[in-house]
Parts: sequence; structure tokens; C-alpha cells
Amino acid sequence: MEYLEKLIDRIIDRVNVNLRKPAFDAGIYIRHIIPLEQFSRFYAFYALTLHHPLHFHFTHSSVAGSYFLGKCIVDHSVLYKNDVRGDELKARGDIFKFENLEIPLHDDEVIQIRDSFLIMNLIHNHSHDPERPEEFFIQNTASMHHANIHGSPVEGSFLGPFSTIDFTMVHDCVIGTYAYVQTDEISHRFIEAGQVWLNSNLFDFSYRFPEETLKRYIHLEPGGKPTGIFMDFAERRKDDFQRVFEMVQSGSAVPVPQGASLSRYAVVKGKIEIGENVLVAQRAYLENACLGKGSNAQENSYILNSRLEGHNIGAHGAKVIDARLGEKVFVGFNSFLRGMRESKLGIGAGSIVMPHTIIHLEEPLEIPERQLIWGFIGNRRDLEQNSLSLDRLASLTGKLEIGSMRFEGSGSAFVEAFTTRIEHILEANGAYFDGVKNRGHAQQVRNISFNTIQPYPEGALKGLYPTIDIRP
Amino acid sequence: MEYLEKLIDRIIDRVNVNLRKPAFDAGIYIRHIIPLEQFSRFYAFYALTLHHPLHFHFTHSSVAGSYFLGKCIVDHSVLYKNDVRGDELKARGDIFKFENLEIPLHDDEVIQIRDSFLIMNLIHNHSHDPERPEEFFIQNTASMHHANIHGSPVEGSFLGPFSTIDFTMVHDCVIGTYAYVQTDEISHRFIEAGQVWLNSNLFDFSYRFPEETLKRYIHLEPGGKPTGIFMDFAERRKDDFQRVFEMVQSGSAVPVPQGASLSRYAVVKGKIEIGENVLVAQRAYLENACLGKGSNAQENSYILNSRLEGHNIGAHGAKVIDARLGEKVFVGFNSFLRGMRESKLGIGAGSIVMPHTIIHLEEPLEIPERQLIWGFIGNRRDLEQNSLSLDRLASLTGKLEIGSMRFEGSGSAFVEAFTTRIEHILEANGAYFDGVKNRGHAQQVRNISFNTIQPYPEGALKGLYPTIDIRP
Repeated sequence: MEYLEKLIDRIIDRVNVNLRKPAFDAGIYIRHIIPLEQFSRFYAFYALTLHHPLHFHFTHSSVAGSYFLGKCIVDHSVLYKNDVRGDELKARGDIFKFENLEIPLHDDEVIQIRDSFLIMNLIHNHSHDPERPEEFFIQNTASMHHANIHGSPVEGSFLGPFSTIDFTMVHDCVIGTYAYVQTDEISHRFIEAGQVWLNSNLFDFSYRFPEETLKRYIHLEPGGKPTGIFMDFAERRKDDFQRVFEMVQSGSAVPVPQGASLSRYAVVKGKIEIGENVLVAQRAYLENACLGKGSNAQENSYILNSRLEGHNIGAHGAKVIDARLGEKVFVGFNSFLRGMRESKLGIGAGSIVMPHTIIHLEEPLEIPERQLIWGFIGNRRDLEQNSLSLDRLASLTGKLEIGSMRFEGSGSAFVEAFTTRIEHILEANGAYFDGVKNRGHAQQVRNISFNTIQPYPEGALKGLYPTIDIRP
Repeated sequence: MEYLEKLIDRIIDRVNVNLRKPAFDAGIYIRHIIPLEQFSRFYAFYALTLHHPLHFHFTHSSVAGSYFLGKCIVDHSVLYKNDVRGDELKARGDIFKFENLEIPLHDDEVIQIRDSFLIMNLIHNHSHDPERPEEFFIQNTASMHHANIHGSPVEGSFLGPFSTIDFTMVHDCVIGTYAYVQTDEISHRFIEAGQVWLNSNLFDFSYRFPEETLKRYIHLEPGGKPTGIFMDFAERRKDDFQRVFEMVQSGSAVPVPQGASLSRYAVVKGKIEIGENVLVAQRAYLENACLGKGSNAQENSYILNSRLEGHNIGAHGAKVIDARLGEKVFVGFNSFLRGMRESKLGIGAGSIVMPHTIIHLEEPLEIPERQLIWGFIGNRRDLEQNSLSLDRLASLTGKLEIGSMRFEGSGSAFVEAFTTRIEHILEANGAYFDGVKNRGHAQQVRNISFNTIQPYPEGALKGLYPTIDIRP
């Protein structure tokens, strides 16, 4: 495995040189986090479809994980159980709009991963970077367990476990554990653990989890492994995924109606109902779940003992347990909603659960319709400090503080931005397919071939993959 | 599937133009032999190991099958459930000896398949062609079910079902159903069905199966599918293979001792005993079988309800059912040995069952030690007409006719050639491994990664594969 060890050392140096001010050592976090032996035990998948341009290229890397759709190049990197999805990458000839500019693309956009170490990350779709619109790059970056890299080119950075960078260009930053950032661009910033921050030229939203609360759910000590409820939850369900990844082909155990799709790389247990136009992505986990028409369970989302009324979004990494979600409830990235077995968490129609929200009930709770919900909620009192009606927010301009949430700017712009994004996600996922028009992912991913690739099983190259190039 | 149809048409034209004298139409045989839909249902495997140079390159082709070890390039071809094994390909720097010449290789040898249509063929190891020693080519060729292309470059030819070309250069020939050819080079020849022919500058051996007998075992009408006992036998066991190919990884159900290896792509049923240094290759089929020390069951061989004493060779496509084989019994390519359930066929130590031999007992039979066995044997009387003691053969020069077998030349050279080849096979397969020295395939294939690749699932490219290039 000597090449793999050297490669990891080299990536650490490249991350550290970017993070030299303030001196940050990525090595402490990543050097021993995955036992080297593991890199030769797992493998990679990639998908073949006619709906997306195809180019996979892997060199001098360990690339365990899944590569679904699109174009992806990985050089000199160590990837471990990642999920890379490029089905919304921009295409040659597309017009990229940025403020008043309209930039035509001279080539298909490609996900470029270089000199990086990524663990169980989700890497998703097109970059919002106007400077390099054809390239969604991740370079000189180390990223810990279950971070989401969503439309966010990133270089010279360290991303903590369960952090999310969302439509943001990130240069030379440390993004703390479970921190969420959505803004245009950040450089040389240190985002604290548990910080949730959305910023645009029209509004600024921020919240920070109390340190002791966050620690119970997810925590990372230098030199240690991530610990807490989030890790335990995923760990307990790991074997179920192992089983679905083991089969070269497999049929569906659950009836899938018109316009809907259930990935063969999703886990399905117990009683499942899937409505029309539902999208259940690879690496989603369903157990005793009812997904109403037009709902989606995205990659790494878990829906357990829950009912989703319809047009619900379970974003990447969202966990919904013992809950009832009304029509069009949105559950953001890496949120963790856990009702009580005997009294399910109810969330009223049209509510928005912000990315990185934890609801873990110690008493029964019904959240009304059209609420914005954030932070940590264990009971009714917490709910008052961590929610706000969307209608009230929409009427607001200026500053607002509720508990440790701070909002400034145009409330209507904020509500408008979220509503637009939710509609975009539903459209893109095919929730509005009428049998002819409004085709989206749910309709396009029904017929895909999957291939596997594996690392060298022994010797100096153990854990690395050969050079692989796949084109149409 | 329009591209696939065009590709098949084009291959037919290229084969036919080579076989224009006498006018032979490969199209009748191959155009509808595999329903087009099938090409999108199967997939390909290839193996990764440190013991062999690696290069797989597939373009404009359908490549279902397995690619184990070595280097293989496939262009503009349609392959269906083939097994391509390159672990004995020559390497750069090797000295290729041919008569008095010693030719140093300037590059690793590559299996090159171009403009060809191959169905369930075995394609194996290094070419004996002194003219192009770095290239084992198959081009402008159509080859039917279960043909063996063994170290035999072939161009512009048609190979019938269950035929074998063995260490022979074949140009513009038709090789009939179940015909076997081993000579230096043949051009513009039509080898009749059931012809078994070995020729060197020291001897000539030939035998031809009676037409009516052969028909029961394997037969191909123009425009039809191959029929007979051989096809039925394989067809009945197809689903067992389907199951082993479906798993990405799998453990062994059978204890595998020191120095032995059992491919995870072999079928294993009932009570199995595997001795030291045994090699059970991919696509071998074992059911209630005991394989003594140093034995091997090669690709497409079937060992059922049988005991192999030790150092036995079950060559590619050999079938051994209800039999006891003494020490060092050799069973050649595509031979079919079927004893009686209540009275197993016995074959004495050191006997050589020629390639393409059928023993199908209607009465109990014990074959003595050190016999050469060929042709069709159903009872004791047949045995007299289809066997000869090796010692008698070794003392012979000139001509000999027994039944429809004709031998001419040096008997000792013939016995010597076979003995040398058997020893070479045992050595190469690792039968003589002592824990340190004499390592062969059985010891080298224990640790291999397997990858799958699949065809386009729909659209104009349905059934074809993307362009794939894999290098170290």
C-alpha cells in the first residue's frame, strides 16, 4: 500500500499549504481516519445512460464510491465511499446567467477532483462559479464524513463531518463540523462548528448550535473519529447498503407507479408505498415509509416510519424518523427529524425545515403550516425559539433576532428564494411530470446500466485503482 | 439497437469477403442466432491483478463476457458471453523460439479482436505465430457457440459450434462443427464437421466422427441454432452461472487448501473436495466432485459425480460425468465423458483422452492405464476401435489405421509432444507448487479484483458498450 500512503501524505501537504494562515493541520484528521486496509475492500460504481454526456477518467487515485451520470475526472485523490452525481451539470452551448451577464459554455461541465481526500461525501451537480463555468473543481481539499459539496467548487479547504457548502465558491477555508454555508464566495474563513449561514445581497440568516447540544449529535476531536448520534445512526444501517451494492443486477421488491423511480441502490425495508412521480435516489434508505405523489428521497436521506403527504423534498443527508410531513414540506440538507414512536412529529403543509436542523422530540409536537424551522427543537418551548411563520417573515425588512437566530434584510426575498428553489428541485426531479411533459430525474433514471470498478487487491498499488477512461 | 444491427451486418460482409472462395455465407448462421434484446441483458467482467500487465480497450463493440488478466483490445466486434484469458500472453523482452529462430519481443503481446462476431467462445493465451509474435489477432471472423480459440490467430474464418483451433494460424477457413485442428498454419481450407486433425512435421493424426453419431451430440443446420446433447447439457446449467455472476463479491463455500484456488466465478454444488494446488477456473462447474492434488478444472469444464485422483487436466470445455480418473489422466478440449450412474467410467492412470472425444457408456467400462483414447466410445467394442496403448504407439513409425483413425509418422514424437504439453499445463497451472517454488496460475489467481461493465440499456446504442480504456 506504499503508493496509497504516499498519496495521502501528499494530499495532506497540499491542503495544509493552502491553510497555512492560520496554521491548520489536516493531517491530524485524515491520516489514520480510514484504516488503509479498507481502501482495498470497497469498490466504485458508475452509471451509463443516454440522457447525459459521459466521461469518467480516474488516474493515480482511490475512487471508492458511486459515479452516477455526467462527466467526472479524478486525479491524485483518495475517495472513500463518496457519491458523485453529475446529472445537472451544465452542457456545451448552455447560457450561464450571472447577474447581468450571459456566458455561453464552450464545453460540457466536468466535475474535476484533484489532490483531495474525501470521505463519504455527496458531490452534486453544477457549479455556480461564473469564473470557471465549465469546471466544477474540488482540489487540495480534505473533507470528512457525510459532508455535502453541492454545486460548490472548493480549493485548499477542510470540511468537517456533516458540513455543507451549498452553491458557494470556497477558497482556503475551514468549514466546521455540521456547519452550513450558502453565499457567493468565501476565502480564508474559519466557519465554526454548528454555524448555519445563508447570505445574499438581499438577506443574511445565521444560527449557531449550542456547543453541548451539537456534541451529542456530531463531534470531531483532532486525531479522533467523528462521534455522536448521526454517526451511530448511519453506522447501524451500513450493512443494509452493503447488501444492495453486492448485486450486479437486481429487480425491485416494491411496486413503482407511473413516472416514479426507485434506485436499485436504495435500501427498502418494511412496508413501502411509492406514489406517482416519486424519486428515490441511490443511497436513500426507506423503512416503513409512504412517499406521496411527487416526493423525493435524495441521496443519503433516510425515511423511517414516516408519511410524506406529497411533493415533499428530503434533501441530501436528511433523516426523517417517526414523522408526518404535510404537502410540500421541505427538509434541508443533513437535517435530523426524529418524532416519538407513539407520537409522530407532525409538520404542517408548506413548511420549510432549514438545512442542518435537528428536531428530536422529548414530547409530542405538531408544527403548524407554512413555518420556517431551524436550529435545535426538542419540545414546544424550543419550537417558539426556532421557528417563524413564512408569512410573517415575508412581511419583514431589517433585523430580527429569535433565540440565537439572526436575520437581516428582505424577508420576502428570503421566502421567495426558498420557494423558487423548492419549485426548481421538484421540477428537476420530475414531480410535475404529466405523462408527457415536465420530465425530470424520476423519469430519466429508470433505465440505467451500472458498472463496478475495483482497486488493486495487493502489492504496492493496493487500494489504488488502475487508470480508467470511459467515453461514449 | 440500430448501431448493433449495422455492426453485425458489417461483420458478416467482412467474413464473407474472406470466404468468397468457396462462397460461404456467415450471415445465415449469425444474423438471427442471438435475439438482439439479449445483448443489452448481459454484461462483461474483467480482472485486475499485479501478476500480469494490464490493458483493456473496447470500442464500438458489444463485449459481454469475461476478460481475465492480460491485455485485450476489442474494436467493431460483437462478443456474446465469451471468456478471454490472457494470463500466458508473451511479455516484452521474452524470446520467442521458432524452429531455429530466437525472436525477441519488442512489446507485450495483446489479444486483438476486430470486426468479429464471437459467441460463447474461449479465447486463450499466447499465439504461436512467428510472423506477428506481439499480436494474438482475431479478425473478420465469426465463431459459433463454445468454440475454442486457443493460441490460434484467426482471420477471415468461420468456426462452427464446439470446434477448436489449437496453436494453429487460421486464414480464410471454415472449421466445421466439433472439428479440431492443431497444425502450424492453414489457409482456404474447409474442415468437415467432426474432423479431428493433428499435424506436425513429425506426425499426422486424423479421425472423423460418423455423421449420424455426431448429430446426436452437436449439429448445426444453416439458418438454425446448434442442437444436441452438448447444447442441452450446457443450457440446463446456465442458471447456475447466472447466479454466480450476479454477485459483486462473494466468499467461498468450500474449503480451499494450501496452494489451491477456486474461482468465485465457478459453480460449486453438492459435496466438493479440493486438494492442494488444484485450480478451478472461472466458468468451471463442479457438482459432487473430488479433485485430487494438482488437478485442474479449466474454463467451461464440468466435473459431475466424479473423482479425479490427482494431477488431472480437465481442459477447456471438457465434461466429466460419473467417472473415476486415475493419476495424470488428461481430458482434452470439449471432450464429453459420461459414465453410468450405477457404474462409473474408469480411466487408468496416465491415459490421454484426445481433444474432442465422446465416451457415453451403454455398459460398464474400465479403460486401462496409459491409453490413447479418441473418437466415439459407447461400449467395450468401441474402445478397441478407439484406443491404443501409449507404449505401443511410442514404438511405432509409419502408418497405422484403427477404425477410422489414421496415424502416420513417429509415434514416439506424438507421445513425447503430448507428454511435454501435459507437463507444461500442470506446471503453468501450479500443480507442482511446493509452498515456495513452481508457482503457477492456482497460486497467482487467489487475489484478484473483478469489475463489471455493461452495455447501453436503451436507444440507438442499445447493446453496445461505451469506449473503455483501462491501463495500470
